[in-house]
Amino acid sequence: MFRTLAATPQRHLARQARRYATQEATESKTNERPRVIFSGIQPTGVLHLGNYLGAISNWVKLQNEAPPQDDIIFSVVGWHALTMPQNPKELSASRRDMLATLLAFGIDHKRSTLFYQEDNQCHAELSWILSCITPVQQLKRMTTWKSKLVTQRNANDESEVDESMLNAGLFTYPILQAADILAYRATHVPVGEDQTQHLELSRDLAESFNRTFAGKKRFLPIPTQMITPCRRVLSLRDPSAKMSKSAPSLASRILLTDTESQIRNKFRSAVTDSIQYITYDPANRPGTSNLLNILAACTNETVEEVARRYSSKNHSDLKADVGEAVENMLKQPRAEFHRLREDKDYLAVVAKEGAEKAKERSSRTMTGVRKLVGLY
Amino acid sequence: MFRTLAATPQRHLARQARRYATQEATESKTNERPRVIFSGIQPTGVLHLGNYLGAISNWVKLQNEAPPQDDIIFSVVGWHALTMPQNPKELSASRRDMLATLLAFGIDHKRSTLFYQEDNQCHAELSWILSCITPVQQLKRMTTWKSKLVTQRNANDESEVDESMLNAGLFTYPILQAADILAYRATHVPVGEDQTQHLELSRDLAESFNRTFAGKKRFLPIPTQMITPCRRVLSLRDPSAKMSKSAPSLASRILLTDTESQIRNKFRSAVTDSIQYITYDPANRPGTSNLLNILAACTNETVEEVARRYSSKNHSDLKADVGEAVENMLKQPRAEFHRLREDKDYLAVVAKEGAEKAKERSSRTMTGVRKLVGLY
Repeated sequence: MFRTLAATPQRHLARQARRYATQEATESKTNERPRVIFSGIQPTGVLHLGNYLGAISNWVKLQNEAPPQDDIIFSVVGWHALTMPQNPKELSASRRDMLATLLAFGIDHKRSTLFYQEDNQCHAELSWILSCITPVQQLKRMTTWKSKLVTQRNANDESEVDESMLNAGLFTYPILQAADILAYRATHVPVGEDQTQHLELSRDLAESFNRTFAGKKRFLPIPTQMITPCRRVLSLRDPSAKMSKSAPSLASRILLTDTESQIRNKFRSAVTDSIQYITYDPANRPGTSNLLNILAACTNETVEEVARRYSSKNHSDLKADVGEAVENMLKQPRAEFHRLREDKDYLAVVAKEGAEKAKERSSRTMTGVRKLVGLY
Repeated sequence: MFRTLAATPQRHLARQARRYATQEATESKTNERPRVIFSGIQPTGVLHLGNYLGAISNWVKLQNEAPPQDDIIFSVVGWHALTMPQNPKELSASRRDMLATLLAFGIDHKRSTLFYQEDNQCHAELSWILSCITPVQQLKRMTTWKSKLVTQRNANDESEVDESMLNAGLFTYPILQAADILAYRATHVPVGEDQTQHLELSRDLAESFNRTFAGKKRFLPIPTQMITPCRRVLSLRDPSAKMSKSAPSLASRILLTDTESQIRNKFRSAVTDSIQYITYDPANRPGTSNLLNILAACTNETVEEVARRYSSKNHSDLKADVGEAVENMLKQPRAEFHRLREDKDYLAVVAKEGAEKAKERSSRTMTGVRKLVGLY
């Protein structure tokens, strides 16, 4: 749901980063109240590098840099996964894997509230209540269900899908997403730009709820979108496409479960171009630029800095260094992931504690909601 | 939701009653397993005679005649009420009044499970899961949202309303209704013929769930509609319309809170016709026939028997006798209603016990559902 790999072109990255920085600066000046930060991620099977750099790395950074008074809430959102056909056994493994992944990469379940959405029925309850103030017309204008149908039906583009293939869950899931956020009265939602339309609905529903039921009180805060610098990682086999868990070639993606030699081999055989020397030129040299981007993410440099360092080197140097940098970045989380994955009891305890914290917090919201709508 | 005054013409009553009898007979032969009977009613403010004769009297009869091994579950469904604009204070009073009414008329909360829908979040959770297998096309074919919009917008007919006025709650509430039923794996649902289309959706969703997630197992039983003999009580001021809580004239309806003299007066001034003697002729003598119908319901006779008894009497005899019969029928429940209405603590205890029984039962279903869809 919230975190899918955003279809954000490279040229937007700098602008996004600037906006993010500005927004943060403004907030720290004008907004003294502690933030409530919420985001969700679908259980999607074993994580690939694109998921990590596009979403989870931002969550970890956010958690580690937030002042202690901020509330941080992360959810693995299984109910959203049901809007598309799933293999139940795989889904069950995926949600556990996603929890283990988040922990392995440094989400601290004592600092942040980390839980499975489906362990907190308040989301479903609030979703129903919000659906009663959501115009069907507004859901129709959402574009996500169309693009999801394209994927599900293996269609070429949106002209090949239509409403007759739509289930009510896929149609209404932006409402559930709003409920995910509003159940915690979240003030800040870190999501990619591809989610702007959905966050807009959450804002509309919060306003509409306040107007309809809360008189002049701002019972539900209007959540602010935190545009996070969302790196678009491309396929290592076909740099015209983004890295994806569903591409046929395993060599196209780096998985969290890949061994060191698999990682090095995949980068060594990555499709780039035959131009001598290294330059950052996403439009004409997508493969090369993708490697530079990945390396910059690993070393915490700007892509321009990295490109300068490699300006007189060749592809094999770059490939070897990216492979090493990625291996260094993934080594420890991978080991931790494998350890946690086997420790189902521990994961169950973490999930249970997280669910309790989440329920405690959302129950306070729901007590107010029920009173305001008259169901008390 | 389930129980609204059915728009069933009088001539259907006999057919319905026959079908009901046949179905029951067949079941007692072929179906040895205990039944799980579920029905819901919206909180609609103080009950009028039409609500009682159309719905609640059937529930009481069902409860009192069911063999002890049957599970009987009745719910006051507040979430459904939110699909239409409500005054929150009034809604809150209405739901308590509806609980008091059901108890006053003889629903035994020790024998039956009696609870507020909104106290059991399992309904909302299952509704979300079912929405993921509900085609939007099928919801569009439902006719109820159109007729509800007509009421809400005070429109003359369905040509004056369209989808642009529709909220997602009103559009998807047949799914919540299916969840209400299927959360208890109900086998029998007593509803009027106006609900046939919705029950059909519940049956489809149960089948679809079993097919999609349960292999060949019949995890969710396919619920059977129990067509109950649904009496259509007409307005005492305008016998072309049914008795309604929203008609401007208070004299058009008998309320559970009416005093004896109010009841007698309302029947005395009931609009009938100027034809001498009494005959049962719903098409040409709707007012007179309505009084015969009400009297028959009070005395547990067929309307034909009553009509025969009055064939040589006049309207004033009939009106006086209906007034007396209705007063006799309502006297005790009215006193009990007033007593219960003041005893909010007792109602809260009943609601809490009911919610616990309901949750205990539906949790068993949901544990299975979560396992089958892969969210465990």
